[in-house]
Amino acid sequence: MEELLEKAKRVREAWEVLKSTETRKKNLAIRKIAERLDQKRRDILEANKIDVEEARRRGVKESLVDRLALNDKRIDEMIKACEVVVDLRDPVGEVIDSWVREDGLRIARVRVPIGPIGVIYESRPNVTVETTILALKSGNTVLLRGGSDAINSNKAIVSAIKEALREAGLPEGCVEFVENPDRSLVLEMIKLKDYLSLIVPRGGYSLINFVRENATVPVLETGVGNCHIFVDESADLEKAIPVIINAKVQRPGTCNAAEKLLVHEKIAEKFLPVVIAELRRYGVEVRGCEKTREIVKDVKPATEEDWYTEYLDLIIAVKVVKDVDEAIQHIKKYSTGHSEAILTENLRNAEKFVSEIDAAAVYVNASTRFTDGGQFGFGAEIGISTQRLHARGPVGLRELTTYKFVVIGDYHVRE
Amino acid sequence: MEELLEKAKRVREAWEVLKSTETRKKNLAIRKIAERLDQKRRDILEANKIDVEEARRRGVKESLVDRLALNDKRIDEMIKACEVVVDLRDPVGEVIDSWVREDGLRIARVRVPIGPIGVIYESRPNVTVETTILALKSGNTVLLRGGSDAINSNKAIVSAIKEALREAGLPEGCVEFVENPDRSLVLEMIKLKDYLSLIVPRGGYSLINFVRENATVPVLETGVGNCHIFVDESADLEKAIPVIINAKVQRPGTCNAAEKLLVHEKIAEKFLPVVIAELRRYGVEVRGCEKTREIVKDVKPATEEDWYTEYLDLIIAVKVVKDVDEAIQHIKKYSTGHSEAILTENLRNAEKFVSEIDAAAVYVNASTRFTDGGQFGFGAEIGISTQRLHARGPVGLRELTTYKFVVIGDYHVRE
Repeated sequence: MEELLEKAKRVREAWEVLKSTETRKKNLAIRKIAERLDQKRRDILEANKIDVEEARRRGVKESLVDRLALNDKRIDEMIKACEVVVDLRDPVGEVIDSWVREDGLRIARVRVPIGPIGVIYESRPNVTVETTILALKSGNTVLLRGGSDAINSNKAIVSAIKEALREAGLPEGCVEFVENPDRSLVLEMIKLKDYLSLIVPRGGYSLINFVRENATVPVLETGVGNCHIFVDESADLEKAIPVIINAKVQRPGTCNAAEKLLVHEKIAEKFLPVVIAELRRYGVEVRGCEKTREIVKDVKPATEEDWYTEYLDLIIAVKVVKDVDEAIQHIKKYSTGHSEAILTENLRNAEKFVSEIDAAAVYVNASTRFTDGGQFGFGAEIGISTQRLHARGPVGLRELTTYKFVVIGDYHVRE
Repeated sequence: MEELLEKAKRVREAWEVLKSTETRKKNLAIRKIAERLDQKRRDILEANKIDVEEARRRGVKESLVDRLALNDKRIDEMIKACEVVVDLRDPVGEVIDSWVREDGLRIARVRVPIGPIGVIYESRPNVTVETTILALKSGNTVLLRGGSDAINSNKAIVSAIKEALREAGLPEGCVEFVENPDRSLVLEMIKLKDYLSLIVPRGGYSLINFVRENATVPVLETGVGNCHIFVDESADLEKAIPVIINAKVQRPGTCNAAEKLLVHEKIAEKFLPVVIAELRRYGVEVRGCEKTREIVKDVKPATEEDWYTEYLDLIIAVKVVKDVDEAIQHIKKYSTGHSEAILTENLRNAEKFVSEIDAAAVYVNASTRFTDGGQFGFGAEIGISTQRLHARGPVGLRELTTYKFVVIGDYHVRE
């Protein structure tokens, strides 16, 4: 608790400096972070190796070990992310809109940093870098609480970041990492409303639910993706298969991977044997509704729980539906509001799907894997928001700001 | 509880219809509300008379009775608000931004309604109308929980609104009013996360704090305004007085009224006797710091609690400060982040104040009373947000929406 409060105070104090720091200096710090990550690459990989070995020893699933593991390529990606964020426009100070009243009073809505952000995350150590550089660039400080799985990797990364901050002349308190692995600290952290402006839980459903139920700091919910792909009667079935494979297998441990496949009944008999064979060729375990199992006999039955589950693994559940309406109803019931896709050649069905599905990203004829700050052109991202308030979808620089109204008069009074 | 759940379900169901209702029909409903308010004017005023008499009988402060009382002029204002909202552009469906990736994938950020909104408010019955019409126009339904003070007024208004909805062919469930006065219902209401997308508490600090501490539905905090005016050394003192009077006395029961006056020490001796005399001429009770009381002897002492208090009454506390920096430090400590003003002729001090003060609205040479949806040109407003997340300042149509990403491809896969 003492460590937590001490570090919360430091990020708050550092924010008072950072919030009005000029872009040049923030960019310098981010460039220095890239340099330090490169220089300390061996230390970071060594530290990560300890974490990965420990995870394997504890029997963690390989798809989750993949989220944890670093290698030269992933460190290069972190460095690349720094370069991308340096090149992005600083959102702070942007006049979002402005107008002049008839009486000459001038009103402007000006973008400002949102404040110190608490981030609670699990395995992926690249989150430490992405979160920090996006926060810095948008004038926000961060209090990080990483999972114990990645503790060694994160400590090595944060040490590199703090060196970079020092070199750039910014307070080290711009980034603080809570090392105490005690889980009860999370409950304390999400109530620090005098220090933090925002809490971002990046993790599974139980973490997010716990934070939502208990936080008094405003929450940005991210990352739970029970994503569906609906293959309509009119879809180009040959082109549909690579999209489904991409959505399921390219990186099954991420939140934008497809977890469910809905297939129009009129094409089920033709399409299911082909797509299921192809999925299996990539090592995907297929579970299915009764109709699916009538068509492909050796598919395991999907339970009610399956329809709710984000597997984060090489598993998919398949359901045959009557039409686009049944697909929409199914998605409305089970969706986590992350990314949902329809594959179709029918304009009316595409429009209906886009209009009625209530998710951060709705796709027509594309893989759900695109829901990502990098892919959307935001540079890096701090997470994918699945809530309605403030920001939805990838949370990049702009989403880490708020605004204030600046009103300039000549001793104006209200009539 | 039964009434609450039943009505929460109804606003959720009605939202599934309203969210994709065309603008023409929503406008028709709002026009019908204006008609009905006009036709039922006598009923509403009669009902309000009961509430006002009951409030006076219970010894409620006159400034609060003023918030409760309706008259022909205030009903005309509600009708006028309907006309204004009809004329405002429907924000739903607006493409906020859009771009095409190098691979031809098209991404658009499209504005959509935020969802069913729970509003918990206290005395002002005009809130019932303003909330409803703004919600309807932006495609959102509302579950209203008004204070028991205004129960008769609100029932009469909601009955008129429901008639209008029926006539316009919209579900009556677009607006539901919880009649049960039991305070424990508030606690139930703010946990209805399966039905409500947003909770807006409009009221004093204790209500807002209670909601923030206990809600699992995301909260939009509104309305607590401990607003300051700082009179700098360089201010035009003659012009400053009408601004201070306007901010304090024009409608002291509202959240944008000034509650504190900070005066630069170099002008205190000259300015304080004049401004305090003028404030008293308008019936304002003046409390002051020690330096203030040295200059104007008969000023009551202000306690530490005074600096935190939103009086919502004809009371003001005055403090002499060394310079703009001390003014900023004082405001940082005691501000509720609503509206803060500097009166100055000095560009550097104006810029410093605007840059360092963290409030929804920051004023240079104008009355804090302008922080208002109507004054800002948003039509009506559902409240003044004092939080950083989602919306800040007046919450109008645009602030009652969220967005989703619509992504259109040609069977695109992520590389």
